[in-house]
Amino acid sequence: MKIAINTGGGDAPGLNAAIKAATIAALRKGWEVVGIQNGYGSIYTDTPFLPLTEESVYGIAMKGGTILGAANRSNPFEMAYQIKDGTWDTEDRSDVIVNTFREHNIDALVAIGGDGSMFIANKLVKKGIDVVGVPKTIDNDIVGCDVTLGFDTAVSIATEAIDRIRTTAKSHQRIMVVEVMGRYAGWIALHAGLSTSSDVVLIPEIPFSLDAITRKINEIEDTGKKYAIVVVAEGAKEKGGELFVRSKKPGQAEVLGGIGEHLEKALARKTGKEARSLVLGHLQRGGTPSTYDRLISLRFGAAAIRAIDQGDMNKLVVLRENSIRRIPISEVAGKVKNVPLESDTILTATDIGINLGK
Amino acid sequence: MKIAINTGGGDAPGLNAAIKAATIAALRKGWEVVGIQNGYGSIYTDTPFLPLTEESVYGIAMKGGTILGAANRSNPFEMAYQIKDGTWDTEDRSDVIVNTFREHNIDALVAIGGDGSMFIANKLVKKGIDVVGVPKTIDNDIVGCDVTLGFDTAVSIATEAIDRIRTTAKSHQRIMVVEVMGRYAGWIALHAGLSTSSDVVLIPEIPFSLDAITRKINEIEDTGKKYAIVVVAEGAKEKGGELFVRSKKPGQAEVLGGIGEHLEKALARKTGKEARSLVLGHLQRGGTPSTYDRLISLRFGAAAIRAIDQGDMNKLVVLRENSIRRIPISEVAGKVKNVPLESDTILTATDIGINLGK
Amino acid sequence: MKIAINTGGGDAPGLNAAIKAATIAALRKGWEVVGIQNGYGSIYTDTPFLPLTEESVYGIAMKGGTILGAANRSNPFEMAYQIKDGTWDTEDRSDVIVNTFREHNIDALVAIGGDGSMFIANKLVKKGIDVVGVPKTIDNDIVGCDVTLGFDTAVSIATEAIDRIRTTAKSHQRIMVVEVMGRYAGWIALHAGLSTSSDVVLIPEIPFSLDAITRKINEIEDTGKKYAIVVVAEGAKEKGGELFVRSKKPGQAEVLGGIGEHLEKALARKTGKEARSLVLGHLQRGGTPSTYDRLISLRFGAAAIRAIDQGDMNKLVVLRENSIRRIPISEVAGKVKNVPLESDTILTATDIGINLGK
Amino acid sequence: MKIAINTGGGDAPGLNAAIKAATIAALRKGWEVVGIQNGYGSIYTDTPFLPLTEESVYGIAMKGGTILGAANRSNPFEMAYQIKDGTWDTEDRSDVIVNTFREHNIDALVAIGGDGSMFIANKLVKKGIDVVGVPKTIDNDIVGCDVTLGFDTAVSIATEAIDRIRTTAKSHQRIMVVEVMGRYAGWIALHAGLSTSSDVVLIPEIPFSLDAITRKINEIEDTGKKYAIVVVAEGAKEKGGELFVRSKKPGQAEVLGGIGEHLEKALARKTGKEARSLVLGHLQRGGTPSTYDRLISLRFGAAAIRAIDQGDMNKLVVLRENSIRRIPISEVAGKVKNVPLESDTILTATDIGINLGK
Repeated sequence: MKIAINTGGGDAPGLNAAIKAATIAALRKGWEVVGIQNGYGSIYTDTPFLPLTEESVYGIAMKGGTILGAANRSNPFEMAYQIKDGTWDTEDRSDVIVNTFREHNIDALVAIGGDGSMFIANKLVKKGIDVVGVPKTIDNDIVGCDVTLGFDTAVSIATEAIDRIRTTAKSHQRIMVVEVMGRYAGWIALHAGLSTSSDVVLIPEIPFSLDAITRKINEIEDTGKKYAIVVVAEGAKEKGGELFVRSKKPGQAEVLGGIGEHLEKALARKTGKEARSLVLGHLQRGGTPSTYDRLISLRFGAAAIRAIDQGDMNKLVVLRENSIRRIPISEVAGKVKNVPLESDTILTATDIGINLGK
Repeated sequence: MKIAINTGGGDAPGLNAAIKAATIAALRKGWEVVGIQNGYGSIYTDTPFLPLTEESVYGIAMKGGTILGAANRSNPFEMAYQIKDGTWDTEDRSDVIVNTFREHNIDALVAIGGDGSMFIANKLVKKGIDVVGVPKTIDNDIVGCDVTLGFDTAVSIATEAIDRIRTTAKSHQRIMVVEVMGRYAGWIALHAGLSTSSDVVLIPEIPFSLDAITRKINEIEDTGKKYAIVVVAEGAKEKGGELFVRSKKPGQAEVLGGIGEHLEKALARKTGKEARSLVLGHLQRGGTPSTYDRLISLRFGAAAIRAIDQGDMNKLVVLRENSIRRIPISEVAGKVKNVPLESDTILTATDIGINLGK
Repeated sequence: MKIAINTGGGDAPGLNAAIKAATIAALRKGWEVVGIQNGYGSIYTDTPFLPLTEESVYGIAMKGGTILGAANRSNPFEMAYQIKDGTWDTEDRSDVIVNTFREHNIDALVAIGGDGSMFIANKLVKKGIDVVGVPKTIDNDIVGCDVTLGFDTAVSIATEAIDRIRTTAKSHQRIMVVEVMGRYAGWIALHAGLSTSSDVVLIPEIPFSLDAITRKINEIEDTGKKYAIVVVAEGAKEKGGELFVRSKKPGQAEVLGGIGEHLEKALARKTGKEARSLVLGHLQRGGTPSTYDRLISLRFGAAAIRAIDQGDMNKLVVLRENSIRRIPISEVAGKVKNVPLESDTILTATDIGINLGK
Repeated sequence: MKIAINTGGGDAPGLNAAIKAATIAALRKGWEVVGIQNGYGSIYTDTPFLPLTEESVYGIAMKGGTILGAANRSNPFEMAYQIKDGTWDTEDRSDVIVNTFREHNIDALVAIGGDGSMFIANKLVKKGIDVVGVPKTIDNDIVGCDVTLGFDTAVSIATEAIDRIRTTAKSHQRIMVVEVMGRYAGWIALHAGLSTSSDVVLIPEIPFSLDAITRKINEIEDTGKKYAIVVVAEGAKEKGGELFVRSKKPGQAEVLGGIGEHLEKALARKTGKEARSLVLGHLQRGGTPSTYDRLISLRFGAAAIRAIDQGDMNKLVVLRENSIRRIPISEVAGKVKNVPLESDTILTATDIGINLGK
């Protein structure tokens, strides 16, 4: 038996722990394990696979990043290549993967990734590759699972940052706007806003009204509390307004400033108070995983090997009711799990007085 | 509407967050909120209740301990009292609670506690008091819920400690035995042992064999790794052996040393290596809750008020599939949730080469 | 004996610990202690002083911010006021302070602040007020002392952030630019760059050359390391180039983007690699002080009271050779302590291969 | 030029950072660098030296322990060996070191260690070996320097632990006794007790009176505060009483329990309150160094190479006034730096109401 492991998409704390558990669990069954470097990138090179041993994965569970490397633009079905004039085009190079897997006798692929990676994984399944998926994204927006690896760390980092920011906000009587990740789903913003009892939390699922936020801040002021904390997901937008998401995609114009900076200025103007904004950015993606993420990542990695061992392919291993379950990758591919507006976290936010922009 | 909040039993990080959310959620409904100080202790005094306001709970979500205080020996059905000769006896004084609640027009009780507290809560229900429970214990051993408040922090503290210990174990080529809490259930030991990829994990659910552990350590030695980490729950015991749990109960003789110290000596003798032990003790119970525990504690607290608001009494609010559910307190009372031997965490431990004492 | 405590200028972790130690040390001598709220701001109101008791300072040593509040534009010698047309002017209102101190029988002032605060303190001394200063600034740029309160925490926060950023930089093979505070002095950038063995560190004391940085990054690339970490102080500038410091001063135009963003773009262009920047901003100022800052803040606070008790006025208490000494405030006022170019930290940076922009 | 690096004695966070800086600084000068494994232990084996490269030291600055390993009983002047009957004896084997250094053309030795290591280093100097020392010990008891590497981390760990313990002590109204390291000097206990504003701090330099401590706890009780924190150095002893230091030395009887446990029992008996004790033990020695320790360790390591480069041998590089200085090893060897009773930290402790056992 020989398996390959791939880590796709953006960074998330816990990737290495998942690689470690999958590698050791497979090696201990007597299997061979290789890693795909830089997100399907190495498939098209002379050295497509990196052999993984007990030594390769020693001590990596507590490390951020991925020892396999990662890359943008590595979707084999839309592989980007540069045209002479410097612009980019894409083409389907997925056959190379299938052939390379056959040549190297890869029996199964452990695909660790988010919705994009599962979309690709599902297409690879259709081309005959046996895949078991592991749900990874700090955004927590994969359907069918209680939680994805990386999310708890991202929320913890955001919580620590807001705790730090709060003391200055209070001493200096300011509005502090903290922009966290979450382009399509507001999980990080909601959880970090809740854990810090912030005053206002803005998520993509609920278009906000500047007037409602201003009203909330004025109410707070009236109770004698002279500062306010606003947590905003990067993908939150004003009712009828535009998105302020920073774009680094090739060919797209970059929007100057993000929603955090926009809110800083708008709220300063509307309330007459001093305001500051902070963009947590890559702080949420990198570094040592929380204990919780180390644990679920190790459990996901080992569970992927058990699924392969049982021939239960084309599944995503997920955490539900604190146990590992398996769901078809096809049920997940191309979907985004938004925060349900009737979820108990939304209710809790409202119950304890957090304004959600309405 | 007027509610009382009680925090019972041992300390757990997150108690204050639960108190905060319950208090604010109730106050915002226009209810009155009081706290019972020191675990039913104040019921028998002149000032049975402490009024709780927005100000009382400001900023407490990130603080360890409980602003209500706690006490041992405060089971109203077996209230301890000292006899003339200095020894202790107990008697049922639960009627006083029922009467005091009536006198003060308490409509419902939010009981935050572990299996012991739920056992008491269930008896109070039978005496006609409306109770909603919140599951709290660092030991994670309450049935019916994915996780209890305090557990994630305890596992995180133990993980950090083992990470620290490991570097010295490695530099000095020692066996390090780390004793964690868990008198009846091995959740903390298993999760902390897993997150740190420790070599041996011993839990109450699986009586251990010293020979098996020695064999494992010798095997490690043969691979060139000159140190070993052993994580042991305080309630773990040798096959056919005795318990080494420290006792502080009145009237009982105190056992000298615990299982950690016992193992340190036994393993040093059997392997000929240097060994050291460390008892984490109260470090696991106190201090700032992890972000995860802050979050679920706030969610539990607010959910308890929603249950009361809907008249859905005598339930425990629990976390399942990352959502709040309610289960009858009677289903929980007096039971302990052990680590299921077929759970994926046990499988993962074995998959990645952790020895469980067999 | 009656003393007043003032905290001036920007936030720094440790302010509350200094307030606590000064307050308790004074109270235990039987003195009266009051705080000036919001940086000399309350002097001009009806309630100029906040009485400080053991209870006011209970548990604050580990908290960020200042319980006294802070304010910009509160220099009594140049107090800002708004003219009819909305613009601002300033005037000398320092006599009000002297008179208010006399009316309230304030015998001495503990002025906790940075170079700006010491400049003001020195002027107050000349007007007859007895002052003892405590050196506070995350920037560490007060002359005459080994270290100022707040600096160790700021360096620690920056170090943690860079550690986190590094794993993503490595996995994604990027240049990461981290902008830290330090408008005139590069202490934070140098120390955080050193502690993280970053590749390039840019400080105001050494104007940098983009070509030199590009050369360094290309050299790294040649050794097979595909990422680079650049730490830059906000006040660093290119040789012959302009400053990119963000300005929030009234009446000044705000520069769009800072040096971090500027470098991100310039280095991406020059190296052809992906680059990202992160501005740590207020994360460095707020939140719980490090243990080191808690300690020196408590020592500074208590030392200020001993100086007053001995009648040794108009001194700044400083840390030298791990002991408290006193130096005249007049020696400090209006001066900035830059990183000496021959300091061992600069030598160490060079010794271990860090490029300083040359 | 060829140098050897040795790390001696107990573990301390920062050792690896010192090794890293020394190695890189030397390699960049074109020198050869080797490490002595397990504290002079490998000198007597076939592979006395481990070559150190940029790769050997990559990423180690933030890791605890020492990549060179450590060992007890490795004093070359009193090398322990086991006699037939199982007991131990020692003999002077230092000539082997001198000869091995000559054979391998070692020009100088960087000796990273505490008072014991400097005692040995001084003897090696007399035998003609050129040595530069780096001051390492969590105990901070080396004379002539402001601070040793490892101390800041140990104090930080102890501070965090006491912060955690405090919340339970308060909720459960207990006396908590925290035993920290410090056999001969009370630096850790004093600094950690100060940073946490503990109620009682007991250090070896000041023999304590149980009556004085009891009196202090009763006074606290009278003010309405129902708990107390006692921090005790392992080497603290009662006036006229015996030492409770745990001994692991071969041939010595092990004392059951330490000073922490002794105090727990004595104070419970004398005050009638519940008491608990916690021994921090190896938690203080292992794991990631604090930012401060990373920094000074890197500075020490690089400074040692500069000293060798300048031919300034037989010196200890020390930190004074936040700069690196050099003092003769002979001035340090065999001495212990106790906490001066007139130091400002002792004064501060007293000023803010900490009882020192008198």
